[in-house]
Amino acid sequence: MLGKDYKRQDCSIARALEVVGERWTLLIVRDAFYGVRRFNDFLVHLDIPRAMLSDRLSGLVADGILARRPDPGHAGRHLYELTPAGRDLWPVLHALLAWGDQHRHPNSRMFAHAACGTELDASGACPACRLTPGPEDVLTQPRASRASRASRASRASQRDDAVARALRAPRRLLDPVEI
Amino acid sequence: MLGKDYKRQDCSIARALEVVGERWTLLIVRDAFYGVRRFNDFLVHLDIPRAMLSDRLSGLVADGILARRPDPGHAGRHLYELTPAGRDLWPVLHALLAWGDQHRHPNSRMFAHAACGTELDASGACPACRLTPGPEDVLTQPRASRASRASRASRASQRDDAVARALRAPRRLLDPVEI
Repeated sequence: MLGKDYKRQDCSIARALEVVGERWTLLIVRDAFYGVRRFNDFLVHLDIPRAMLSDRLSGLVADGILARRPDPGHAGRHLYELTPAGRDLWPVLHALLAWGDQHRHPNSRMFAHAACGTELDASGACPACRLTPGPEDVLTQPRASRASRASRASRASQRDDAVARALRAPRRLLDPVEI
Repeated sequence: MLGKDYKRQDCSIARALEVVGERWTLLIVRDAFYGVRRFNDFLVHLDIPRAMLSDRLSGLVADGILARRPDPGHAGRHLYELTPAGRDLWPVLHALLAWGDQHRHPNSRMFAHAACGTELDASGACPACRLTPGPEDVLTQPRASRASRASRASRASQRDDAVARALRAPRRLLDPVEI
């Protein structure tokens, strides 16, 4: 997906950035973890230009991060789902999320270990069970405190597309969003 | 550092990507963890166009990831060093590195807990001590197996700039590279 400038950067960070070092790409991957699978659902939730979304989805499929298959519910359309390599990006996403939460803007969602309900720590581990659950064992939901303290202004700035509404209920990562 | 397209992405991942969601930016941050502090050292090690490096360093200073101070050794020049917020990016970098190592290209360096010498696991934790060391307690060095098995071709493709040579010795992250 990337130019040649990085070829001589002999480092697995550089190689990883060739795949996911583009902002929209990681937001698409984030949405895939949230269970978004359809072109139109990514489109409405990300406000991304249609051509760019199409390009980024193709790139993620070519790079083995997403798998594309026919959508059984919509003839002629496709589902995009994380491959095992794509699912392995969860620690990258969680680390970005934890950093953003601490240094930029409090995260609007919480992430908990599904087995016990304990909120994950900054490293993505469950402090109660002392293990790091895979994304399929992570529950996410909007932070309750955020909803209750929301001012009129911040409520007005909240997204209200169909995907955003579906994501308001507690759900496991990777559980398909059905709208 | 970024456009307005992300403003409505209410997510700390999106906020984090506004700061570090650009490939060169993360490679500069990587080099800062390796102890690179001077403009010319970033330049020679990254093969980055001078104007782009200047732009990215300024952005990282404006975003509070790097601090710039006069270089006591070179009048009129500066040192760029990770701030506490910048050092907190270590888990993001390590997660990218682990993913790249597993799914793209074996990492040419190893990262170990300085206190005991045990190689960090994919989550960045020390399996022996069962803790996750901060970057100041991480030792890095080139993988021995890689050096010994290097074919003539791969040796020829290895970087041989002054920074790359300085990084061949075992060293702690954040220890300044002095050339």
